[in-house]
Amino acid sequence: MTARLIDGKAFAAGLRSRVADAVPAFTAKAGRAPGLAVVLVGEDPASQVYVRSKGKSTVEAGMESFEHKLSADTTQDELLAVVAQLNANPEVDGILVQLPLPKQIDEAAVIAAIDPDKDVDGFHVINAGRLATGADGFVPCTPLGCVMLLKDALGDLTGLNAVVIGRSNIVGKPMAQLLIAESCTVTVAHSRTRDLADVVRRADIVVAAVGRPEMVRGDWIKPGAAVIDVGINRVAGAEEGKTRLVGDVAFDEAAQVAGHITPVPGGVGPMTIACLLRNTLVAAHRREGLEAPAGL
Amino acid sequence: MTARLIDGKAFAAGLRSRVADAVPAFTAKAGRAPGLAVVLVGEDPASQVYVRSKGKSTVEAGMESFEHKLSADTTQDELLAVVAQLNANPEVDGILVQLPLPKQIDEAAVIAAIDPDKDVDGFHVINAGRLATGADGFVPCTPLGCVMLLKDALGDLTGLNAVVIGRSNIVGKPMAQLLIAESCTVTVAHSRTRDLADVVRRADIVVAAVGRPEMVRGDWIKPGAAVIDVGINRVAGAEEGKTRLVGDVAFDEAAQVAGHITPVPGGVGPMTIACLLRNTLVAAHRREGLEAPAGL
Ligand SMILES: NC(=O)c1ccc[n+]([C@@H]2O[C@H](COP(=O)([O-])OP(=O)(O)OC[C@H]3O[C@@H](n4cnc5c(N)ncnc54)[C@H](OP(=O)(O)O)[C@@H]3O)[C@@H](O)[C@H]2O)c1
Ligand SMILES: NC(=O)c1ccc[n+]([C@@H]2O[C@H](COP(=O)([O-])OP(=O)(O)OC[C@H]3O[C@@H](n4cnc5c(N)ncnc54)[C@H](OP(=O)(O)O)[C@@H]3O)[C@@H](O)[C@H]2O)c1
Repeated sequence: MTARLIDGKAFAAGLRSRVADAVPAFTAKAGRAPGLAVVLVGEDPASQVYVRSKGKSTVEAGMESFEHKLSADTTQDELLAVVAQLNANPEVDGILVQLPLPKQIDEAAVIAAIDPDKDVDGFHVINAGRLATGADGFVPCTPLGCVMLLKDALGDLTGLNAVVIGRSNIVGKPMAQLLIAESCTVTVAHSRTRDLADVVRRADIVVAAVGRPEMVRGDWIKPGAAVIDVGINRVAGAEEGKTRLVGDVAFDEAAQVAGHITPVPGGVGPMTIACLLRNTLVAAHRREGLEAPAGL
Repeated sequence: MTARLIDGKAFAAGLRSRVADAVPAFTAKAGRAPGLAVVLVGEDPASQVYVRSKGKSTVEAGMESFEHKLSADTTQDELLAVVAQLNANPEVDGILVQLPLPKQIDEAAVIAAIDPDKDVDGFHVINAGRLATGADGFVPCTPLGCVMLLKDALGDLTGLNAVVIGRSNIVGKPMAQLLIAESCTVTVAHSRTRDLADVVRRADIVVAAVGRPEMVRGDWIKPGAAVIDVGINRVAGAEEGKTRLVGDVAFDEAAQVAGHITPVPGGVGPMTIACLLRNTLVAAHRREGLEAPAGL
């Protein structure tokens, strides 16, 4: 392996402790701790794990955690009523409705109901518009984390050729916007891209957000490029009945060629919750008319 | 010259007449004609020309034109009051505040005050967010016109490599979003791009929205590529004291290599007003809960 490992776990731990360090000053000024509300509808096991982990991290950072667990047969109106109540609650700075939602509920309608200034997931159309136009808002946590890792590894990104594989609203498209704002020359690729390998070969920065295990091969990578692997794919493990997580990049191959690379797990994954805490702290400051601490 | 000329003037005339043809049916159903309000602050000569031309085209299409001319020393609050009144006026389907505004007025605040469902310019943050997330909204007229010309010239754009030069909120960035939605592989280039000529040489579609006369040279163009020149630059003409308009592309050179090319003038330019009328007609239908006619 020639690439330097981008240690997202360590960076995320650092970000979380910077957030935690800033909480007491906020609490002293505002007379209350920053608060994050997480809403879970139904019993999806993966969602339960995420929600538990978010709540735990929130408390560890010295923030207030509000958890709302609703049954799988919750109606859309019931969920909207919970959102309205959280919008109105002055102690709640961030609202996160865990996706996916049961099929009787229209996700878009629920996201649209969240106060954009409490939308720490950055999924509200107003925050998508703010990102697209360069205004202050909230940026989805996963791409925000990717940019932080890139800037930490490479410094100024100006003029670098970046290729983002994937064009989803929660990863690929906001990722591209963030890299344009960093003055990269940005190419967005997706399932309809012709000769993806050739497109990727020109990139100084590759962000893979596809959902296809190890699709990006080592010989697609330009020597020295930085590779950010957003993919989280569960595949059969070496031992029968065991599974393991792999990214969208063939790590062992790419690490021979890349200059920097994120592992899976331990790369982008841990950044998502850290950025959620960061967004909540920023939301709290903005809502109280306070300046958010620099360096987050 | 080997390239086929993309006749934006003719296409725009066709679009305008399709809009005009659809007006009587709307008027019959809604009991009123679609209405477009244009607000001009100050006496900027170019803006006066644009506003006059928009008003004339609106009337020619059978729509109602509302013109508000305010003096150059209008305060922001006065302008916001006019916008509020137009938001509330049920006969107004589209509101366009001509930019630039005098310096005592914050353009962003004025755009933010326009009802997003009457924002036929597509500049409101909510419409930027709708475009970014693939929801129905209003798309800025110039990039919308560019995509119409491309689809007319090339048919399905899926899988084509597109390079957009420029990342402004009103042309470059929405243009990139639209081409991603058409399933092109899209590269956004700008002033910090390294070796722009090399980036452009890979493009099946080149959209130049830079504001630099004839910057894009013929030998940057891949043989057969479609070249959309958004630039409008006034330069010294051959005769002393005369000026002429040129685009961001060196037309004579590029036309030797390209497959399709827009001239300046007569290419993208005429599409902007035609798309404004189109957006106004669509806004009118949406506001009345009517289905907008297909093929616009
Ligand atoms: N680390 C984290 O915290 C985190 C957070 C979110 C997501 N993820 C992971 O990131 C991955 C992507 O997530 P997502 O939500 O963005 O997924 P998504 O909504 O399914 O989008 C996947 C994108 O990949 C593109 N794609 C699919 N097959 C392709 C191919 N063969 N070649 C090129 N592009 C292809 C799709 O193109 P089309 O648009 O043309 O269909 C689409 O744009 C998943 O593995 C997910 O688990 C991780
Ligand atoms: N046909 C129409 O109806 C219509 C409508 C609107 C605009 N236009 C014309 O279109 C052009 C662009 O308009 P705009 O409003 O988008 O302009 P703008 O806001 O000035 O944006 C210009 C863009 O070009 C980039 N750029 C500047 N110099 C460059 C260089 N040397 N190499 C590569 N990129 C460079 C800039 O990059 P940075 O971001 O890095 O600075 C910026 O993103 C103008 O000529 C304008 O008159 C025409």
